[in-house]
Amino acid sequence: MPDSAFPLTRATTVPALQAVVTSFRKDGARIAFVPTMGALHEGHLALVRHAKTRADKVVVSIFVNPLQFGPTEDLARYPRNEAGDIALLQGVGCDLVYLPTVDVLYPDDFVSRIELKGPALGLETDFRPQFFSGVATVVMKLFNQVRPDLAVFGEKDFQQLSVVRAMVRDFDLGLEIVPYPTMREADGLALSSRNAYLSADERAVAPKLHAALETVRSVVQAAGDTEAAIARAKADLTAAGFGQIDYIALRDAETLGEVRAGKPRRLLAALWLGKTRLIDNIAV
Amino acid sequence: MPDSAFPLTRATTVPALQAVVTSFRKDGARIAFVPTMGALHEGHLALVRHAKTRADKVVVSIFVNPLQFGPTEDLARYPRNEAGDIALLQGVGCDLVYLPTVDVLYPDDFVSRIELKGPALGLETDFRPQFFSGVATVVMKLFNQVRPDLAVFGEKDFQQLSVVRAMVRDFDLGLEIVPYPTMREADGLALSSRNAYLSADERAVAPKLHAALETVRSVVQAAGDTEAAIARAKADLTAAGFGQIDYIALRDAETLGEVRAGKPRRLLAALWLGKTRLIDNIAV
Repeated sequence: MPDSAFPLTRATTVPALQAVVTSFRKDGARIAFVPTMGALHEGHLALVRHAKTRADKVVVSIFVNPLQFGPTEDLARYPRNEAGDIALLQGVGCDLVYLPTVDVLYPDDFVSRIELKGPALGLETDFRPQFFSGVATVVMKLFNQVRPDLAVFGEKDFQQLSVVRAMVRDFDLGLEIVPYPTMREADGLALSSRNAYLSADERAVAPKLHAALETVRSVVQAAGDTEAAIARAKADLTAAGFGQIDYIALRDAETLGEVRAGKPRRLLAALWLGKTRLIDNIAV
Repeated sequence: MPDSAFPLTRATTVPALQAVVTSFRKDGARIAFVPTMGALHEGHLALVRHAKTRADKVVVSIFVNPLQFGPTEDLARYPRNEAGDIALLQGVGCDLVYLPTVDVLYPDDFVSRIELKGPALGLETDFRPQFFSGVATVVMKLFNQVRPDLAVFGEKDFQQLSVVRAMVRDFDLGLEIVPYPTMREADGLALSSRNAYLSADERAVAPKLHAALETVRSVVQAAGDTEAAIARAKADLTAAGFGQIDYIALRDAETLGEVRAGKPRRLLAALWLGKTRLIDNIAV
């Protein structure tokens, strides 16, 4: 199908964005939103395709959000490829791409933050204390600028998905948060923009993370010793060449707190491979 | 005019509230919102009357918000008079009164807060560190539940008005914040629900706060020494029987930071009279 079948509109300011969204609304369209930081891959495109099945119009934002990066993190080198991203979005039927600058989202007099406990406690927060406040703040802004009926989030960032759900519930935002399963390479590696940082050797090792999580899951499902299985997984990953293991943890899938009898669980992990931090998670 | 001319609807849950607001919207009504903590007086009624001139329907909430009270503050003894409040609201043409319980606004799994710097720094925050986070959080929730076109806030709580404005701007809430001047007794005392705490003797002394602020203003406007004038005002108020003076401060009226040449200024004060904390402010 030629690209011209999908007229992809671009907006870089709030008034331009809202003019287009208002025109969608006037046609009675149901609007889905997919926030991204760009450097789009098949995982993002799957979110957009899924959004397209749930709504008449799909809005995608591309914004590398400085608030969610710590001072020593990879904000400056985070991969950016706006032209490539737009071509990909055109190909999957995105109707509007929103490309705000930092000044548009955070003018000089910007002074507000969202802070959460609950699902934001522990895991990523132990290593990236600014992360969920930065995510929640930008997502609240983007939701209020776009005013979608629903928003699609990947399960790859499972704790982020949980935090966004809590924020939407707590602040009565009145939109539906739609989760979408993690997309993986054939060898199990979860798709991530940060995979672009991996050397060929690191790329060959990286799928062992997912394999290790699956091994822990089989032990847990066979009612084996969870702590011992996690300790073994950590030792195996270290032996395979991974660096610091920030966490491998089994949590309640809804609250991300302690597991509860009879409730769904999630196994979550974050660790380093060379200079790249990888995260992954699976249902248990 | 008989009360029956104003059919005042009550809602205690979010679905009940939104059913009525949706019915207003279907009629194409412009909706104004006045959040209160109840214990209504002429100051609140003036806000409702003003809202009525700016919109077709006026929604008033009554909710004593525990989040904005510190552990040693007057949450438990804060004056409550629901039946009297409703009668007063009926008399000024309020269309819908929203009376949520604590459980409706803050269920057990509630984990979120709004935090602000900028106008929330200093003044009240130095003495009530939880106050503006509590106010901003409940106001964000109420705005999202009611979805008004505009909301009216009294200038009596001037720093609160500034904080709400910053939050609305920062989170792209897309509603208008309408300020309304402080209502005063004939002797100058700013109307406040907390004036009900004052003994007869304290009530006689209380107007000296407003008089002292006016004296400081005349010195400032005559290009006199602001610091000396504030120091004199503090000494006079102490001599008159006031207790701890939390602050008397001249600030930029927009940012609440340091005064800027050629910009409007505001003189703000908070102090104790017996067991009652009074606040007031005037334009300079």
